[in-house]
Amino acid sequence: MVRVKCIIKYDGSQFSGFQIQPKKRTVQGLLEQALTKMHKGKPVRIQASGRTDSGVHAKGQTIHFDSPYDIPLYNWKQALNTLLPNDLYVKQVAFASDTFHARYDVVEKEYRYYVWNEKEPDVFKRNYAYFFPYSLNIEAIQKACGYLEGTHDFTTFSSAKASAKGTKQRTLYAVSCGKQGSEIEFIFRGSGFLYNMVRIIVGVLLDIGQGRRQPSEIHDLLAKKDRRLVGETVPPEGLYLWNVRYGEVD
Amino acid sequence: MVRVKCIIKYDGSQFSGFQIQPKKRTVQGLLEQALTKMHKGKPVRIQASGRTDSGVHAKGQTIHFDSPYDIPLYNWKQALNTLLPNDLYVKQVAFASDTFHARYDVVEKEYRYYVWNEKEPDVFKRNYAYFFPYSLNIEAIQKACGYLEGTHDFTTFSSAKASAKGTKQRTLYAVSCGKQGSEIEFIFRGSGFLYNMVRIIVGVLLDIGQGRRQPSEIHDLLAKKDRRLVGETVPPEGLYLWNVRYGEVD
Repeated sequence: MVRVKCIIKYDGSQFSGFQIQPKKRTVQGLLEQALTKMHKGKPVRIQASGRTDSGVHAKGQTIHFDSPYDIPLYNWKQALNTLLPNDLYVKQVAFASDTFHARYDVVEKEYRYYVWNEKEPDVFKRNYAYFFPYSLNIEAIQKACGYLEGTHDFTTFSSAKASAKGTKQRTLYAVSCGKQGSEIEFIFRGSGFLYNMVRIIVGVLLDIGQGRRQPSEIHDLLAKKDRRLVGETVPPEGLYLWNVRYGEVD
Repeated sequence: MVRVKCIIKYDGSQFSGFQIQPKKRTVQGLLEQALTKMHKGKPVRIQASGRTDSGVHAKGQTIHFDSPYDIPLYNWKQALNTLLPNDLYVKQVAFASDTFHARYDVVEKEYRYYVWNEKEPDVFKRNYAYFFPYSLNIEAIQKACGYLEGTHDFTTFSSAKASAKGTKQRTLYAVSCGKQGSEIEFIFRGSGFLYNMVRIIVGVLLDIGQGRRQPSEIHDLLAKKDRRLVGETVPPEGLYLWNVRYGEVD
């Protein structure tokens, strides 16, 4: 058996999310279908760094699976891409040690969120950025980004639907916001992320950018650990799983 | 009755082209459906500057229609956009003279064609540019672009399916090609375009860029007036109807 690690990208707009579901078009479903076909019908299961919701994109998601086949790396990549649709692409294939795990060995994840900040929507961006027509104070947002960095309990910024078990403590290594033309880019690098965490944080940052909250309120919101204190989760189309980093071991 | 002129944009990837067809999702079909709804079920027909094929995009298509309603321009725009899906957008509404015609009064059209010239495809560009992984000599293409400018019979560069009647003579005012990063942009401005003309020309320009033809062969190809001399029509996803210009009268 060899353990194969793949870095994949996908346009999430036509997927019902990453996780396999009966009768739904999912990333995991299509990958496992392709792998099972390559293994002459013998089911192959994959493990990913984590799930992404319906409509969320990936520039660098990582998965792994085991195979009895002795195939050169380039051929793995080519065979998989031949079997996959053109909104799901295997960028890179590597052999990993048999203890490597795409989920448990994650050292750092990077998410990005894009906002299209124009008066009028753009039909070509509708699936790829969140259309937000109101003016924003980027400096106030940047100040708040700094307050989010570090190790905190992010209960306030995670879905109430998230599983109750486990700590809600996470470390954000870097949070930033920049504007280029009409596009606003948020970058989040962290040890891990709770369910909907990026999309809830961006919602609060947009409130701050509109002057509905002060940047300093971030401290208080983190301390209160109450999801009900903050607004709605921003939509999935702006969100990209950008990169997943592992230790040097693999 | 007022004659209303609209500039619209659409992402062509989810449309079966512009022209209305039974049971198909078309730009004309959705526009007429929205207008008919606004007119309490009374059918409204639209006229466009021309059709676009399935998968072809528009940044600036022009249409017109007649209405008995006395509605301010801003309300026309808002009412239509409320009734249209988010891949079809009315950018601008104006009142036109009752002799204005979106097709017959065209003075100049601009099309652009985008090629994604990288070794590997990009899932996010699959519907918006033609993926072409081979290296290209842009200077040779630019030379050929110059030879296409002017008034010529474009029979060689138009679909054999095009209607037999009428002259195949058209004037190209400006043809250019530029590369920025991995993206190649072709710009065509002309008096009018034959069916599939831009997509056939781009196919020949890509042949020239690969060294399979010389730029000077353009003269000979134009003179021979034979569609069979040139290669395949490039795919629709790279093509954008960019702008339509009318005389000062309207």
